[in-house]
This record gives sequence, structure tokens and C-alpha cells, in this order.
Amino acid sequence: MTEYKIALLGFGGVNRALTQLIADKNEHWANEFGFKLKIVGVSDLYFGSIINKNGLDAHELAAVPAVKGGFRTLPAGSAEPANETVIRFSGADLIAEATFTNPVDGEPATTFCRWALEKGISVVTTNKGPVALHAESLKALARSTGAQFEFEGSVMSGTPVIRLAKESLAGSEISGFKGILNGTSNFVLSSMEEGLDFSDAVAKAQELGYAEADPTADVEGHDVRLKVVILANELLGAKLTPSDILCKGISGITSTDIAEATKANARWKLIGSAEKMSNGSITASVSPQLLPQGDALAGVSGATNAITFTTNVLGPVTVVGAGAGRFETAFALLSDIVSIHKNKTKIGK
Amino acid sequence: MTEYKIALLGFGGVNRALTQLIADKNEHWANEFGFKLKIVGVSDLYFGSIINKNGLDAHELAAVPAVKGGFRTLPAGSAEPANETVIRFSGADLIAEATFTNPVDGEPATTFCRWALEKGISVVTTNKGPVALHAESLKALARSTGAQFEFEGSVMSGTPVIRLAKESLAGSEISGFKGILNGTSNFVLSSMEEGLDFSDAVAKAQELGYAEADPTADVEGHDVRLKVVILANELLGAKLTPSDILCKGISGITSTDIAEATKANARWKLIGSAEKMSNGSITASVSPQLLPQGDALAGVSGATNAITFTTNVLGPVTVVGAGAGRFETAFALLSDIVSIHKNKTKIGK
Repeated sequence: MTEYKIALLGFGGVNRALTQLIADKNEHWANEFGFKLKIVGVSDLYFGSIINKNGLDAHELAAVPAVKGGFRTLPAGSAEPANETVIRFSGADLIAEATFTNPVDGEPATTFCRWALEKGISVVTTNKGPVALHAESLKALARSTGAQFEFEGSVMSGTPVIRLAKESLAGSEISGFKGILNGTSNFVLSSMEEGLDFSDAVAKAQELGYAEADPTADVEGHDVRLKVVILANELLGAKLTPSDILCKGISGITSTDIAEATKANARWKLIGSAEKMSNGSITASVSPQLLPQGDALAGVSGATNAITFTTNVLGPVTVVGAGAGRFETAFALLSDIVSIHKNKTKIGK
Repeated sequence: MTEYKIALLGFGGVNRALTQLIADKNEHWANEFGFKLKIVGVSDLYFGSIINKNGLDAHELAAVPAVKGGFRTLPAGSAEPANETVIRFSGADLIAEATFTNPVDGEPATTFCRWALEKGISVVTTNKGPVALHAESLKALARSTGAQFEFEGSVMSGTPVIRLAKESLAGSEISGFKGILNGTSNFVLSSMEEGLDFSDAVAKAQELGYAEADPTADVEGHDVRLKVVILANELLGAKLTPSDILCKGISGITSTDIAEATKANARWKLIGSAEKMSNGSITASVSPQLLPQGDALAGVSGATNAITFTTNVLGPVTVVGAGAGRFETAFALLSDIVSIHKNKTKIGK
């Protein structure tokens, strides 16, 4: 039985949900996958940090009170974060990185990833920043130290969109994709179809916890743009940065636009897409598009996400699923760990 | 570079498309996957048979005229089928089985699979019969001889539904599924929504080549029932046979039913489903169901297929794609071969 010593960076919803899953399902995973996870360290700006090379009790961690410095309530816990110590000195052979997304330079998460990968410690992350901005160099670093860098959860939460494309669709020759990659904006558009105007729809999304106090990143398409960069670079071999992508959000969509679309049996959707052109170049964009009812993405309502891959051999393939959620996103981290385990088994480590 | 010697059983649309793919893409696959395919034998009731242990020319094979005994036009070809000889004496280490589906006892395809697996020859098949009726014994036989038995194409053509569930969703705890698993009946229902009555819609499907002269298996749900057996047994650990499944087709759906559904903002769909109950038993059925517009399957029109998996950790995940087509189904065979190659590499063969 393999046991991975895992350290958690960030202890918000996602890593806390992963901790709960470990508490509940570690024995089950041992049977299903042939490995167990032992948490050896956690660091978080708000909760503080805690390290135990012999393993922390996942039940106890998951139950830590959500107060500033909460880890202080545990034996050997501290109210201060200690990212570097947790990465470098907790004895972890796996890091689950789920700190906040910084869309400008991907920091400090990118540095956390680098510290780990430099030491040969594999990283699984749900954080769009390091992946969209630095995937190529982080993957190269991982290769050079024999570590692995996996990021399934950075695009569609636990819905396995990267792995579907790279593994299950291998050989189908993916030539492009278009997706509904932001649940908040899709929820706003669906609410507008039910009669709300844009600002009331945003307020409703905020009320329900789908939108943040500042909804700009969601409704102006910036979040989708990072996801398009990740997918285009990973699946189509592009070398895009966010500034390469024309980005238009949904704040210009009016109730009149929505009503006219409904009359025409069509729906406005915020679409992130990329396509490989015949000369090999990649074009990518984020913009509201009017989809006819027959489009596989037209029926995707509310906070759900979806993506259609265009393939040469197989035609279009669409996957629809959760695009957010604590446990859903924590599942992405698990699926990355399963993938790392399979690769390690394969190369006989 | 690994080279697999492959023999083809059945040379209808699917294996002929696979032959065309091999002709066009073998060099490309060598780069992408690290293997090449060499066709060493083909047997077909209509075309006859041909064997060459040193490899047949895929371009030449794909261009064989579609006439009875057509293989006689090739050097060393015969107008007679020779399934046993091709399986046992062509030197193949891989069999692509794509003969006709016999829903009663799965023969003769099941015997073909057995002959191959007994010799340690791996089998990839798109044929529902052997899988729905004998998967358990064929998988056990494969394990006992170190061969592999893969059948991604038996359910949704090339759309990777089995592999998505077993690999990408591993750990998500699939508790059930419901799907639109027959393109012909879905096309008929879509045509009825456009105003045709049932028999005109069937006639239109026949005209377009979607339905066979005898449409019973498609419209009465028998085809879907086999697919539900395959998925329930493979993904939920059921031990169902087709007779365990309540099966009702769409021939009782009237134009009035369709019109009333449209008025209620809903759509009739032929749904195959299975669910794991809390006591561990599996219930499964095939029947027309009225889906509200918000259901991820409601928007799937025409000959397209789709399936929604219910998972404990990740909520519902839906995949939509081709459910038929020569090249689409041939892609399923390729994806099975890729999977076999990965496993062989893994266990160091």
C-alpha cells in the first residue's frame, strides 16, 4: 500500500473539503486506488499553519473552527501561516495548492508550486493563476526533477475536462473547443431570461453566493479568459497569454437582447473558445454569443458549466457538469492524485 | 516502436473505416502513441477472407470493391470467410471484432472472442451481443490468459462513455445513469416534434439510412436494453441480463403526446437508465420519459446520443456525442487499442 504524505496550501472551501473527503474515504480509496493520503502540513493566511510529519488527524482538521488563527486551537498549531516551511520541511511528497487566484502574475501560488517542484514534490492545484500564466515553465521544472504538475480543477472544477480531452479523446484530433466556463455569468444570463435585468440578476447571484462582492472577473469574462488560455495551451499546443485573447463580457447584454433572443428561439451565452486554423495558428476569444436552441450548449442553464470539443475523427463531443463547488473541486485534486499514482506505478517508482 | 499485428473480423462500415484510418494515420499514431498497427488478416461473410502474416496493404484493403467475394480480387484473397483461421493462424496479437450483433446468444461473435482470448490474443469489439450477454466470462477468460477485452464502442460509438466513467470519474462514486442511447429512436422523436406522425418519422429515418428495414430493435428499445445491461454491469457492478430489464419503446407515443409535451415545455425521450439502490441492488429500465427543458438530456436532438452519470461526490456529469457512424465507431476501436497499449506498457510486457 502506497501512502502519500500530502501538504495543503490554502484551507478555504476546497482543501477543507479535500480534508473531509480524506477523513471519510481514505480506507475506501486504499481499496479502490491502492493508496492512502496522510496530511502532514497545512498553511493558510487566515487559519495559520500546522505540521506533523507523522500525520495530522483529518477529522480533527476538518472540524477546526473557522476563526482567524484557528489552527492555534490544535496541539502544535500556529496562528501564523508558514507556506515555505510546510512545502520544504513537512516531509510532504505531494502538495495540494488551493490558494487564491492572482490573474496578474499568479503569485504567490506560482512560487509555492516552484518551491515544491524544485524539490521533486508533485503539485496538484485548482488555481488558475499559476497554470494560465506559467504552466509551460512549471511543467518543464516538474519534468526536470521527476515531479508531476496536475491541474484538472483549474478549468471546470471536478468535471474532468482536461483528462477527457487528453486521455479519453486521444487520437480524435481535437481542433478546437467552445465552452460555458463561468457559472456566475451563466446564472446571470439565465436569471435575465426569467425576467430580471442585468443588475438585479447580479444582485441575485451575489445573494445566493454565486457572485462575489465585485463581480467584474466573472461578468466581464476575465475568469473565462484564464480558462481559455489553460485549455488552448494544454490541448491545442498554443502559447497564449491572457492579453492575446479578445475578451468581452456580458455587462452589455440588455433585457431587450434577451427577449429578442428568446423570440428567435436562441439564447445568449458567454462563450470561451479557441480553434486551430489550417495554418497551425490558434485563434481564441471570449464573448457573448447567440446560440440556436439546437446547440449542445444552449440548454445549459444556471451555474452549470459545459464544453464542446471539435474533433476531426469523432465530430463534436460535449461534457456538462459542475463548474464550482467545494467538494466538486476537491474531487479534481483527488483525480489529479489518482493520475499521479498511476504514472508513478507505470514508471516503476 | 511497438507494432501490433491486428486481424479484422467483419469488414462492414466499422472495420473498413478502421482500415482507412490505419492507411491514413499509422505514421501519426506512431508519434502520438508509440505504436503502429499492421493488418495481418480479415474475414467477412460477404467479402471473404485474406491473410498475410507480413502485413496487408491498408490502402489496398480499404479500396476493395464492395462486391460479394471482393477479397478474391486481391493476391492470396479468397471469396470464402475464414474466421477461425484468421483468429488462430494469422499471427495476430489483436483482434478487432465488428461482426453483426446477435441479441439472443451473442453468436458467432462470442465464439470468435473466446477463440482469440484463449490464445492470449486481446480483443477490441464494437459488438453489443458478446458484451451484454457474456462480458463477465470473457473478461475472466482474458484475465486467465493475460489478454485484454475492451468494448468502448459497444455503447455510444466513439464517444468515450465507458472510459470517462471508469477512468476520469474514478472516485466520484457513480450511483446511476440515464441516457439517450439510440440515435434512430431519438431522430424519430425529433421528427415527430417537427410535425411528422410516428410512421412517417420512421420512414424518414429509413430514407436517411438511420433506421433499418425492420426498425423494431431501435424503436422498441431492444438496442437500448443491451446498452443498459453493458453499462449497469460494467459501471455499477450489476449482474443483469436483458430479460431483467423492463423495456418499453416509443411506438406508443402519438403526435398528440408530442404536442402536449411541447406545450408543457417538455420533451419525450427514450431513456435507458440504471440506479444503485441503498440496499446495493440495481434497478434498470428502458422507457419513454417526459423530460423538462432544464434536463441536460432534453436538448439532445436528432441522431445524437447522451448520458448523464449521477455521482455522489461530483453531482451529475453529462456527455453528449455521436452514437453511430463508421469512423466514429472505428475511433472506439482505436481508443481500446490505445488503452491496451498503455496497460501493456504499464505491466512491462
